[in-house]
Amino acid sequence: MTEVKPHRQFQKYPYFEEETSEAVVNARMGPDVTPRLRQVMTAVVKHLHAAVKEIEPTHEEWLAAIKFLTETGHMCTQWRQEFILLSDTLGVSMLVDSINHRRPSGATENTILGPFYVADAPRYEHGANICLDGKGEPAIVRGRVLDTEGHPIAGATIDVWQTNEDGFYDVQQKGVQPDFNLRGVFTSDAEGRYWFRSSKPRYYPIPDDGPVGKMLAALGRHPNRAAHLHFIVTVPGYDPVITHIFTPDCPYLSEDAVFGVKESLIADFRKVEDPAAVAQSGFGRPFWQVDWDFALARAAAGKPAGSVTA
Amino acid sequence: MTEVKPHRQFQKYPYFEEETSEAVVNARMGPDVTPRLRQVMTAVVKHLHAAVKEIEPTHEEWLAAIKFLTETGHMCTQWRQEFILLSDTLGVSMLVDSINHRRPSGATENTILGPFYVADAPRYEHGANICLDGKGEPAIVRGRVLDTEGHPIAGATIDVWQTNEDGFYDVQQKGVQPDFNLRGVFTSDAEGRYWFRSSKPRYYPIPDDGPVGKMLAALGRHPNRAAHLHFIVTVPGYDPVITHIFTPDCPYLSEDAVFGVKESLIADFRKVEDPAAVAQSGFGRPFWQVDWDFALARAAAGKPAGSVTA
Repeated sequence: MTEVKPHRQFQKYPYFEEETSEAVVNARMGPDVTPRLRQVMTAVVKHLHAAVKEIEPTHEEWLAAIKFLTETGHMCTQWRQEFILLSDTLGVSMLVDSINHRRPSGATENTILGPFYVADAPRYEHGANICLDGKGEPAIVRGRVLDTEGHPIAGATIDVWQTNEDGFYDVQQKGVQPDFNLRGVFTSDAEGRYWFRSSKPRYYPIPDDGPVGKMLAALGRHPNRAAHLHFIVTVPGYDPVITHIFTPDCPYLSEDAVFGVKESLIADFRKVEDPAAVAQSGFGRPFWQVDWDFALARAAAGKPAGSVTA
Repeated sequence: MTEVKPHRQFQKYPYFEEETSEAVVNARMGPDVTPRLRQVMTAVVKHLHAAVKEIEPTHEEWLAAIKFLTETGHMCTQWRQEFILLSDTLGVSMLVDSINHRRPSGATENTILGPFYVADAPRYEHGANICLDGKGEPAIVRGRVLDTEGHPIAGATIDVWQTNEDGFYDVQQKGVQPDFNLRGVFTSDAEGRYWFRSSKPRYYPIPDDGPVGKMLAALGRHPNRAAHLHFIVTVPGYDPVITHIFTPDCPYLSEDAVFGVKESLIADFRKVEDPAAVAQSGFGRPFWQVDWDFALARAAAGKPAGSVTA
């Protein structure tokens, strides 16, 4: 009879135990794993196991989670990113954005880019009306681009986009809305000023016909984003700002489906009915006016301006 | 000019802030969410945000995570469940199994079912050889089914399945292996005994041509499962046991890719070369012998025996 010598590697955690499960899994990483991947996976396993230990899922609940993730993956196409929607609706996208855009006090805060940004929108002179379909309540948006000490910044690029009165971006309604409806690029003048005409934005739902929509329904949540204008403001030497400004009277202001609202980004939209102002506006009827200044922080030394979208 | 009254719901956490991000998201759940879903989602969001705050992913890293989850979803088909592989390789499947099968001391421990179980395998008399392809080193597996006090349990069903010498289950090689190769169902006798003939199991890789395989490679991990026989042992009045027994000399014993090995499940496989025993075995050559007793805990009062696979 041959003696069998068990071949056991001398690891600290060779076999699975519930108590040490996190350590068992993390001890398995090889010696050549990059330091960052090691750090990330160690944290992923730690928090994943902590969640499982707190939840104590039944086999059926675990299988429901597998099914949910699978359906979320199957919903993803070239045109639909359901995992980003999941990240958005669980507040993860905003958290990642916040972590990567901690700014000195006084600088305009970031919020999420969203999926509807289009590069190469038309460049306009100040005062142009970007609302090409004539729908909705007219609005004048005006203000300045400043540094954090309040000095004007000339030559800053202000890229704006928003939904129309029906709650859709132009790219969601190709052939229905005019191309580049409610999009435009402006440049701040010598005093840092910009202004343009548009319409008051409307709230709109994120796509809710997939697993994320079902999740929101089960959680008693609606899919609506609070009404906003998107802005990207860039100028060499300063941190790019990717942000929104929100209307203060939107019914979804305090319950934006993707948590995009920061208190500092709620603007003051005033209704202007003065006949002289109405005549001067070119709208021919009362309109909304919002004054909004952007405050840009100086770019950190050695940090390239880089792409604003990645 | 009309005064605009901001419509803000009086929530404790209306707007996103990095510091309170978890509370902001969880405060959004509606009043009619089921208590269990509320508990689960509260924990999911808590641990997810804690992970993000510890990792501080860049935008690119966040996007890489979205891409990984999307590719994992796209790999899932009717025949391939990549999210279960992910759960397995991160130790989550074993953790869920452990949580749901905490047993009194002395009872045989559970381990994962795996994807290769087939119901309705052939029923055999004791001593039958379930190795239908004649490959591999022959083995005799024998032992008893007992309760946790060591009393024999008669009439227990012992369902066994394993890979062949090439490291594949019959269902992975339809038309190559005989149907039901290395599968069989036995019934313990009046003294609780069972025995059958088979071959010594081989280690084998989990499918590693998808995102999970790439993850394992990046983590310096191999895809191999330690060599094992699968068992399901059931008898009315006792907790069903879904488990493996492992060979002690497998090179992957202490690094099973799905963490299925528990120390208590490593068996003693002895090589038998005695001519009389060889003659009696019917193998005509030296063989392996493993003695393995199962100890079953009494079913908890009021808990139905239920399906062993769900």
